[in-house]
Amino acid sequence: MSKKLIGEQTVVFSNSPIILGCGSVVGEKEGNGPYGQCFDEICMDPMIGGSTWEEGESNLISKACSHAIANSGIKKDELNFSVGGDLLGQIIATTFGVSKLNAPFLGLYGACSTMGESLAVAGMLVEGGYADLTLAVTSSHFAGAEKQFRFPLGYGAQRPMAATWTVTGSGAVILASSDYVNKSKNRTVSQNQSRNENQSGNNEASQSQNGGRKVMIKGFTAGKIVDYGVMDSMNMGAAMAPAAADTLFAHFRDTGKTPQDYDLIVTGDLGKVGSDILKDFMKTKGYDLSGNHFDCGVEMFDKEQDTHSGGSGCGCSATILCGHLIKELKKGSLKKILFMPTGALLSPVSFHEGKSIPGIAHAVIIESEE
Amino acid sequence: MSKKLIGEQTVVFSNSPIILGCGSVVGEKEGNGPYGQCFDEICMDPMIGGSTWEEGESNLISKACSHAIANSGIKKDELNFSVGGDLLGQIIATTFGVSKLNAPFLGLYGACSTMGESLAVAGMLVEGGYADLTLAVTSSHFAGAEKQFRFPLGYGAQRPMAATWTVTGSGAVILASSDYVNKSKNRTVSQNQSRNENQSGNNEASQSQNGGRKVMIKGFTAGKIVDYGVMDSMNMGAAMAPAAADTLFAHFRDTGKTPQDYDLIVTGDLGKVGSDILKDFMKTKGYDLSGNHFDCGVEMFDKEQDTHSGGSGCGCSATILCGHLIKELKKGSLKKILFMPTGALLSPVSFHEGKSIPGIAHAVIIESEE
Repeated sequence: MSKKLIGEQTVVFSNSPIILGCGSVVGEKEGNGPYGQCFDEICMDPMIGGSTWEEGESNLISKACSHAIANSGIKKDELNFSVGGDLLGQIIATTFGVSKLNAPFLGLYGACSTMGESLAVAGMLVEGGYADLTLAVTSSHFAGAEKQFRFPLGYGAQRPMAATWTVTGSGAVILASSDYVNKSKNRTVSQNQSRNENQSGNNEASQSQNGGRKVMIKGFTAGKIVDYGVMDSMNMGAAMAPAAADTLFAHFRDTGKTPQDYDLIVTGDLGKVGSDILKDFMKTKGYDLSGNHFDCGVEMFDKEQDTHSGGSGCGCSATILCGHLIKELKKGSLKKILFMPTGALLSPVSFHEGKSIPGIAHAVIIESEE
Repeated sequence: MSKKLIGEQTVVFSNSPIILGCGSVVGEKEGNGPYGQCFDEICMDPMIGGSTWEEGESNLISKACSHAIANSGIKKDELNFSVGGDLLGQIIATTFGVSKLNAPFLGLYGACSTMGESLAVAGMLVEGGYADLTLAVTSSHFAGAEKQFRFPLGYGAQRPMAATWTVTGSGAVILASSDYVNKSKNRTVSQNQSRNENQSGNNEASQSQNGGRKVMIKGFTAGKIVDYGVMDSMNMGAAMAPAAADTLFAHFRDTGKTPQDYDLIVTGDLGKVGSDILKDFMKTKGYDLSGNHFDCGVEMFDKEQDTHSGGSGCGCSATILCGHLIKELKKGSLKKILFMPTGALLSPVSFHEGKSIPGIAHAVIIESEE
């Protein structure tokens, strides 16, 4: 009945929110990786100027938001909503990180799927007519996450080969309504006309301000909680892969699409172990991902950086999305991607109480238009 | 520009989501309080049948969801989305509690403001055309919260008079689109007609199924993060009152309304201390709340129950809303309320690292119609 829900789990936007710009900030190790040159800022100080890991992570968020606002050519005061979250208990990295934006805030928790969830919620705020400009943000910090979920760094605990390395980084995306973009284009045209009264008016300024092709969120498939009973917190890829497969299968079932309809099917931080499981799962359901699967965790670090199964954390998919993928979409070298970060829904308490590690994945359809 | 945003922070729904029904479950102490007879279920076992406090809280959530689904006369499989969260790190009470619903899930964190945030997000999902049926849920558990934020119960720590008592309870609300309600009414009418072929058809069955007057969410004012530098985790009322005042002032500014436009202005768990601060704050801005302010924390327990400043926790406002307020709206003894739970955005880590306790409050407009 609801007009924008197709099948069981997939929302298709009729008036797609536009990605105006984004910001990405990472730590030194990520800066030394293969995508180092893509990010807006590389912080050589592991504390990111804070006095604690948590304060440092909040600073990552503040910086990513500032870059996103500057890159979008908007003013901070124009933001109608900010949405987001992080891995820390009570999402303190985000709440302390976004408070200076002074925008209404909706806190989210989707573990490492948070960038997918944030884009979905921020997208609905814009597409539903509730906002003209929203900001979606998430973060993670290697040392903060180890302290929260595993062992203090000083213990020098051994990491098994299935373990991933939590990315120190934050990504922020600004979404705008088409109304906002059209009005701001007209404003720029009239400014250009008045500045160049004897020349022909053009809107190149607004094009360069927001850079390249129009990149839009076309919809999303919201994930269910999937629990295969995995108990190993050092193998998050295995815990999350069933959720990725569940959401991806639902997406294809709801939309009638196939993997080949996307230039890339992007997962967040399954790592090498989880990516192989996802591909195997999908193969048994008749879908071949071998040609265009891209896992941000696998891509984030070089093999020599010794992260074992790859990168992870909310910041992993968020920084690769904001630093690399959206730029490729704006350039036109990518036209259509399915961005599907996965989250492991454990806490240190649930893990130590012997509970399993359920997973969740939210898939966001992102397309560019000439 | 966005059509449904008035002023800076207030969303007004044009096609208001309907509260189909709700469920409320509490612990023994809450059952012995003045609202004991209002709740769907009182659990005499403090573990709520679980082997840990956290598992018990998940069971509270499952029970509240089951009551809400039964009271709404819907089938579990009809739910398009579930949204919600709780106080525990990584919102594990909610994720383990809702997983058996098998519905797409959006995890939220707004501390004790979560029921306000959940209703806002679940409301937008319905009103924006993304869903026909959504479930909004939250919970808290006294022992789980003490373990998470303060001291293990076995320490027998002294509680100052400004401290509140975390409510053991969960509330869940089912929201439906008007399309869904009309179709289900027609279905009931035609069922009645075929059952009573020689009698006159009527839709009383659907009225009694969903009970009384139509109760709707008319919109909400989303809160900003407000930080007055309060550092005392035993005085959450003082930490959250400035956020309540900020959102309430924004609501009146955006809508042109006054306190007298509502039968009740409901806060979540400011307690006695925080409620007095809110009223003082609002008085300095020219608004008199003395006639119709209702704090769920103040109301939840009798003075003899020795909770000091009152009840608190996500479950406090959620159970009073689901057990009492919505029923009064359905009966017509209340017509229009502003439901504004407040959250304290601290974590045990942020608190012990010497950070302040920022607050947030989301105000939801709930009205009944004959």
